[in-house]
Amino acid sequence: MARINFQRFLDLMAQQAEIGATPEGGLNRPALSEMDIRARQWLFERATAAGLEVAMDGAGNQRVMLRANDPDAQTLLIGSHLDSVPNGGRFDGALGVVAGLEVLLTLKDSGAELPFHVEVVNFTDEEGTLRGLLGSSAMTGTLTAEGLPNVRGGADALQEGLSRLGLSSETLLNARRDFANVMGYLEVHIEQGTRLEQAGINIGVVTSIVGVRSYWLTLTGEAAHAGTKPMADRRDALWGAAHLIQQARELVLQYFQPGVVNFGSIHAEPGAFNIVPAEVRLALEFRHGDPEKLDAMQTALFNVIRRSATEFNLEVEITPAGLIPPAPMAEPMVQLVEQAASGLGLSHTRLMSFAGHDAQSLANVTPSVMFFVPSVRGISHNPAEYSTPQDCINAAEVMLQAVLGLADR
Amino acid sequence: MARINFQRFLDLMAQQAEIGATPEGGLNRPALSEMDIRARQWLFERATAAGLEVAMDGAGNQRVMLRANDPDAQTLLIGSHLDSVPNGGRFDGALGVVAGLEVLLTLKDSGAELPFHVEVVNFTDEEGTLRGLLGSSAMTGTLTAEGLPNVRGGADALQEGLSRLGLSSETLLNARRDFANVMGYLEVHIEQGTRLEQAGINIGVVTSIVGVRSYWLTLTGEAAHAGTKPMADRRDALWGAAHLIQQARELVLQYFQPGVVNFGSIHAEPGAFNIVPAEVRLALEFRHGDPEKLDAMQTALFNVIRRSATEFNLEVEITPAGLIPPAPMAEPMVQLVEQAASGLGLSHTRLMSFAGHDAQSLANVTPSVMFFVPSVRGISHNPAEYSTPQDCINAAEVMLQAVLGLADR
Repeated sequence: MARINFQRFLDLMAQQAEIGATPEGGLNRPALSEMDIRARQWLFERATAAGLEVAMDGAGNQRVMLRANDPDAQTLLIGSHLDSVPNGGRFDGALGVVAGLEVLLTLKDSGAELPFHVEVVNFTDEEGTLRGLLGSSAMTGTLTAEGLPNVRGGADALQEGLSRLGLSSETLLNARRDFANVMGYLEVHIEQGTRLEQAGINIGVVTSIVGVRSYWLTLTGEAAHAGTKPMADRRDALWGAAHLIQQARELVLQYFQPGVVNFGSIHAEPGAFNIVPAEVRLALEFRHGDPEKLDAMQTALFNVIRRSATEFNLEVEITPAGLIPPAPMAEPMVQLVEQAASGLGLSHTRLMSFAGHDAQSLANVTPSVMFFVPSVRGISHNPAEYSTPQDCINAAEVMLQAVLGLADR
Repeated sequence: MARINFQRFLDLMAQQAEIGATPEGGLNRPALSEMDIRARQWLFERATAAGLEVAMDGAGNQRVMLRANDPDAQTLLIGSHLDSVPNGGRFDGALGVVAGLEVLLTLKDSGAELPFHVEVVNFTDEEGTLRGLLGSSAMTGTLTAEGLPNVRGGADALQEGLSRLGLSSETLLNARRDFANVMGYLEVHIEQGTRLEQAGINIGVVTSIVGVRSYWLTLTGEAAHAGTKPMADRRDALWGAAHLIQQARELVLQYFQPGVVNFGSIHAEPGAFNIVPAEVRLALEFRHGDPEKLDAMQTALFNVIRRSATEFNLEVEITPAGLIPPAPMAEPMVQLVEQAASGLGLSHTRLMSFAGHDAQSLANVTPSVMFFVPSVRGISHNPAEYSTPQDCINAAEVMLQAVLGLADR
């Protein structure tokens, strides 16, 4: 059985972690920053030095290719991202790209002849310093010109970042790839949670990347003197908000696990000690991997919200603030990863990904799968993020066996 | 039985309401603004024209005096305020000053010889545009130099306002009056609530002005990814806040009525759709007229807060943000007003004042009482604030009979 060169692989992991390293042991490598661009140079240099082919598309996505003998062969994609959140960790994204590179190096060393091209992609701005899933959206054709002026990092920062690579909005919007010759997509990532660690399992095979729905809730009652207005006569918007937060929490815990709900932001007007709140604005977000359960969750949550409003004599307005559909992984690809893990004697389980990943863009256009390795204490987007060397090695080994397994099918 | 001149009185009420009148029928007459100063001129002009003596102290409190024959006689004070909140109503404060003026005019017309001086006071800045209860605190000696830099309207606005009357911080801090010769204090005000209106009662005699305690609560949990962190493992500060708001509300409704509690302001950090709130800052205010019940309320509320924090695995910090002790009214003065109302055939009831008033400053230094007349729909600090002409007349009539009743004691 072919195995990766684990010393070379850990050395590559250490090298990438030096680029943008922070004193706390993390990484500060936001998309298209100076450090991100240095990481990109490093990736291309290592690939070129090993005789691999490299290319960059109009979205800045980096492609490192191991060609099959047949130029008309299909292509298997392996991807993740080298960018980090500001002051993030050394594993998030980088593990997937470096594991992919190590797989290509191992395959090249072994002289194995695969019936397909294998291509590793470093996607631009997965983390959202600029827009989030920027490169994978552009490549899969879901990025549109309309959204660009309102990207979360600002339109100017996006232009500036692209220009550092000699790119522009025009090249970005024309980066759509033809997926007719792509046979599938594989991605490995740290879990960013504690399910694998708590269960003592090596590999989590993702069956779905959860859908995320965000809404602004506005509850409107009536401002009143907090002394003279009897409590029974108040229309206190914060009472309604407090009630619905509790009800929503209990609803999801009881009926929609492993779905999750969050109220991340709250604001009360007019906002004084001695005035009964007239209006509360509340950020609601909920996630589920199953499209039907996500719909049912929305119906039940909206019922809870409306019942709370009625109970406290408030008006309520529910305004959409974002909608990411669930991205189910392809069952044959899920089984491919399970077989690869089993073949290596690694334990594995199926789970949903509650965070977004480039795989959710790819799942729209090609059979895709993600898998996770454990994160110590689930710490993520933080310099203390950590996965053990053995878990990192497992990531690359399973990836290699999955690629080889696909060649055997 | 002496009666006021109700046409003159209603005319005086209409005159004052023109000064700072807003298009919506309210008043915009913040303390020591141009309009407040014009209202002050109007008061002194009317008093002087009627042969009453006028004076102003170092805090800007205006005094209008009807002298007894005996220069060594004691003084009965009648007070309220001509300043309004920004965009407030025509009755709040003004009714008490104008009713007091009408009582003096009636007494002067009647040639009655009272065994005490009667003095009407227009207190500076009751409403808190600058500081709140500014004039009555200065007069009764509870205003200190330490607090002046941090007044709610800002130290500069306070200086500027005082200078418009030719006054300063020094004159303000030296405005303390000797109360040895003051026999008592009377104040009439609109209710700013609906208890009288709902019960169909003419006069509410205040037994206590409620104590008000304000605290900042800070609940601290842990920020986390709102997708990947399982709900059962979260330390969501907003869950704790929502829980304690509900518990506190139910506690007060069940055990501490007519006490009230309010959470007027709330803020969650970091404040994003996809991040579990790590910290919530919450403004707590509660009121009760009975000092022992106010203490018991505090103990019970703090228990609820700490239990909610424990239940959601949060830390909690409770920081004092203001403490106004309850101000019980003097029982003989309460009975004086009750007798005056009964003598006029007006129905009356005892109640607490849930709003602050200058009477709470005066209650510290002299036997004091307040009474209320109904407010239509309880609307207050609003251009739509309204009390009927008959209720305004009742205010002045009861005040006159109370003054005469005191002369008979």
